[in-house]
Amino acid sequence: MKPPRILAFDIFGTVVDWHGSIVREVNALYPQVDGDAFALAWRAGYYPAMARVRSGELGWTRIDELHRIILDGILPQFGLAHLGEAERRHLNRVWHRLDAWPDTVDGLTRLKSRFTICSFSNGNIGLLTNMAKRAGLPWDCILSAEVFRAYKPDPATYLGVAATFDVEPGEIMLVATHQDDLDAARALGLQTAYIERPLEFGAAHVKDVSPDTANTWHARSLVHLAEQLR
Amino acid sequence: MKPPRILAFDIFGTVVDWHGSIVREVNALYPQVDGDAFALAWRAGYYPAMARVRSGELGWTRIDELHRIILDGILPQFGLAHLGEAERRHLNRVWHRLDAWPDTVDGLTRLKSRFTICSFSNGNIGLLTNMAKRAGLPWDCILSAEVFRAYKPDPATYLGVAATFDVEPGEIMLVATHQDDLDAARALGLQTAYIERPLEFGAAHVKDVSPDTANTWHARSLVHLAEQLR
Repeated sequence: MKPPRILAFDIFGTVVDWHGSIVREVNALYPQVDGDAFALAWRAGYYPAMARVRSGELGWTRIDELHRIILDGILPQFGLAHLGEAERRHLNRVWHRLDAWPDTVDGLTRLKSRFTICSFSNGNIGLLTNMAKRAGLPWDCILSAEVFRAYKPDPATYLGVAATFDVEPGEIMLVATHQDDLDAARALGLQTAYIERPLEFGAAHVKDVSPDTANTWHARSLVHLAEQLR
Repeated sequence: MKPPRILAFDIFGTVVDWHGSIVREVNALYPQVDGDAFALAWRAGYYPAMARVRSGELGWTRIDELHRIILDGILPQFGLAHLGEAERRHLNRVWHRLDAWPDTVDGLTRLKSRFTICSFSNGNIGLLTNMAKRAGLPWDCILSAEVFRAYKPDPATYLGVAATFDVEPGEIMLVATHQDDLDAARALGLQTAYIERPLEFGAAHVKDVSPDTANTWHARSLVHLAEQLR
């Protein structure tokens, strides 16, 4: 198989630690709240919210707004119904302040020397830009569902990356820690690399990171992927 | 006036030297051709081509394709009607290989330490990404007319930058060497910085770079702008 030219990275869970970052921030702001349960509840609303956009029930809506709708919905369960607009707005932007996994910046920097590296996330462009600037993520390009006005796993997103760079789908490699995302990409001809992120959902909910031989590559970290692709 | 948070840069002429780059490449590939006249003829087709998209005569069409339509149209005038598909395709991608002005990388690097810096060009995302990787342009984010599916000076593009970052138009500053682009931005509430590029059209066609006091800033180069904004 020809080596890829473009590496497109899933972000939430693959490049940044959404669970740990939200737990840390919620614990600091609202010590009475179970940060682990809060992070999981917020994230649990993510796929259903995007499904409302995909089905047409909602028009095109950025993830910032979907995160806010979900947040407003879960605050009462956690005794935070009293939060005002400024607090809600600040908390909602925690998704712009997610911390990278420890191997991320080193891994991306190594991969950038050989490939064009881009984000490829359902997160919106502003969110991904603020995150990259804060965490030092050295993207060549920020791609987002917002560019394609469709959410993964809509085929328009994966094929949109290939069209953006005027290459064949097989010259793109999706890098992700979610097998369903990789499955959708592979079905359209993209190469795939699975990254183990056993702690994506926190130490109390260790994720199965068994290899799927259908993927082109399987790596413990982004540094490990860079070593394999060297 | 509040300082801007986001600097959005016009690209062709402002950040990269399209005329000099095309002259150099055409002179190297086709020494019999007048590179200066060739570059000017190609660029002269740019605004009319975008106008065909804006008017609806053409559906959404990337600049790569518009450049190719213009190129195919001018090749006979320069005795290059015989060029085959591979040569035309390679030549058309010269827009991905434009050289930065000598102050560009230093200026952008300094500005990046204080502001979010993004491209904001009618060029398409793939073109801008390839250009940035080759020329070392350290964007925080690549924004393009392609994201907004509208070409500058459509208001949807300037306001789209503000919406992308969820800020007021006045928190964005357009940096450009074209007064008409700056005029359109200013009318919508953006701050503006004019960059002198007297040689944009080549040494034989020196451009008037007189200040317009309507702009927020006027600078000889991107380094000079960084010094003023320090």
